[in-house]
Amino acid sequence: MINYLAIDAGGTSTRAVFLSARGECLGYGISGGGNPVSRGFEGAIDSLLEASEKALGGTGNRFHSVTLGMAGASLELPTHLFQQRFITLGLAHEVLIESDLLAAFYSGTYQDNGYALIAGTGAVAARVTESRLAAVADGTGWLLGDDGAGFWLGSQVVRAVAAALDGRGAPTALTELVLAELDITLDPGVRTQGRVGAQQQLIVKIYEMRPIELSRFAPMVFAVRDDAVAADIIERAADALARTLGAVIEADTPGPLVFGGSVLTKGGAVAAAVTARLADKLGAAAGSEPLAPVLVHDGVVGAAVLALKRNGVEVDAAVFGRITESLAALRD
Amino acid sequence: MINYLAIDAGGTSTRAVFLSARGECLGYGISGGGNPVSRGFEGAIDSLLEASEKALGGTGNRFHSVTLGMAGASLELPTHLFQQRFITLGLAHEVLIESDLLAAFYSGTYQDNGYALIAGTGAVAARVTESRLAAVADGTGWLLGDDGAGFWLGSQVVRAVAAALDGRGAPTALTELVLAELDITLDPGVRTQGRVGAQQQLIVKIYEMRPIELSRFAPMVFAVRDDAVAADIIERAADALARTLGAVIEADTPGPLVFGGSVLTKGGAVAAAVTARLADKLGAAAGSEPLAPVLVHDGVVGAAVLALKRNGVEVDAAVFGRITESLAALRD
Repeated sequence: MINYLAIDAGGTSTRAVFLSARGECLGYGISGGGNPVSRGFEGAIDSLLEASEKALGGTGNRFHSVTLGMAGASLELPTHLFQQRFITLGLAHEVLIESDLLAAFYSGTYQDNGYALIAGTGAVAARVTESRLAAVADGTGWLLGDDGAGFWLGSQVVRAVAAALDGRGAPTALTELVLAELDITLDPGVRTQGRVGAQQQLIVKIYEMRPIELSRFAPMVFAVRDDAVAADIIERAADALARTLGAVIEADTPGPLVFGGSVLTKGGAVAAAVTARLADKLGAAAGSEPLAPVLVHDGVVGAAVLALKRNGVEVDAAVFGRITESLAALRD
Repeated sequence: MINYLAIDAGGTSTRAVFLSARGECLGYGISGGGNPVSRGFEGAIDSLLEASEKALGGTGNRFHSVTLGMAGASLELPTHLFQQRFITLGLAHEVLIESDLLAAFYSGTYQDNGYALIAGTGAVAARVTESRLAAVADGTGWLLGDDGAGFWLGSQVVRAVAAALDGRGAPTALTELVLAELDITLDPGVRTQGRVGAQQQLIVKIYEMRPIELSRFAPMVFAVRDDAVAADIIERAADALARTLGAVIEADTPGPLVFGGSVLTKGGAVAAAVTARLADKLGAAAGSEPLAPVLVHDGVVGAAVLALKRNGVEVDAAVFGRITESLAALRD
């Protein structure tokens, strides 16, 4: 029996799975961030090797090839360096690098056509056609887009608080949460040169942070109840994510629809709002009822699916079911 | 006759005027950026001294005190260092530091109560009461606010273009302008891993820039004609600036209203849209017709007005007229 190694390399954690051609997951390992853009090449390769060794269980198990799902696979990564290192270590003769977006899609389905929408720190949608990325929307980063994702949400939260403090915006329960998080005392009576003291402190503390760190304020928008300002931010996030997914939907691709990333998978309010906004378009694409999204929490199942598919192994419902069930057992 | 030196220290240029207690401007000088936050203390002091020496005309003219209008006067600037340097050089016995916001206000009026709205790279509004900043709104910087100002506009422009390129947003004439500015060729047929080639190039070029440099794309929103996307950005800028000014308006302060910064003073469409949105509130504050804003291009007149007022010289319509007319003659 030929075996395979599949790796899902993320920005904050990396997952590897050792599996058979039948889809039986034999070993599983997890490690730190495996993205060379955020971790550097050496840091990334260390994470990949650590997760791989854990998945192989130190048994010296051999495998045919390694399939690596990774962000920015479309960009100019030094993929040959990954290949060289794996080959030098005698771990594999072949390293296949795939988009993390495709790995996320195949974590929810074994079919070769459909859609993925991911909203974590960033936001991106893809249409998959014949097992390839046919169209991608957004995923353009915090300065250009990623509308409705973590940075965007956190940024809207702190902007709403800054506006509430000087009266440009409506009062919001977010103010108390943000000021408490930053150890700022709200004393509305105190103004220095016309400016509210808490706002002056907010300015100082926010500009001490790296911009991308604003995503830490994103969860607050879901933590407050009956707050019109927070509700409006969530509505606008759903609008943006619906536009992103809507941009890749076409009538003759009926689905399935895979959702990933904490904004869509935690709570479910945003996911429901996005599908509601696209009911017509999704119904038209499917030719029947709107699609219900499959939620995925990472891309490791998809990396395993890709490991088999790219090596000519057919992945049907039975194989897909075997991958998800045997992997779930290993992860328990 | 006692004379005064007044300086308007901006981020990109510094203006100094040497004037008499009657408001006659006797000398004028201009130099580079005089803001210690952006230029560093030594760079800023060099600009202040260069503009001052030009204004004094190398005649060894003596003056009672120097009044310095400067951004962030409310923050913890090393103002004693400015004072020390001026005093060491024998230029003045006293250095008064005032907010650039107050200098902008007094560039449009000699009255001690009213409003200023400035929208250049940043956006900020103030209510002036008895010659002091009584309330300030926004001016919170590009990450927290400055809604409707240069960075905000430029950011909206590039986000609209990124969205137009992958179909999330409507097509816009801004695309051609932005891509031409960045030397990117639009070839809608080419996709790599699902992503439009021009968008991939846009991502690479935008993230090579410092975020604040996005303000260079702001003027494009006024350069296109009959473009719904650009018109929507302008409308939202006017909404934001109206909220900022509206936050400092109160019923018993009737005006005047001073507008500054290129977003409000160039073209005039945004200024008109802001006053239209606040017609009721401004009418209520004035108790009659909505206020017509006075447009100012920098803060040097206001620095001169402050130099006199802070030294106990009454500035009435005649003195104010003398300052503006004699300064205009020097600047020609």
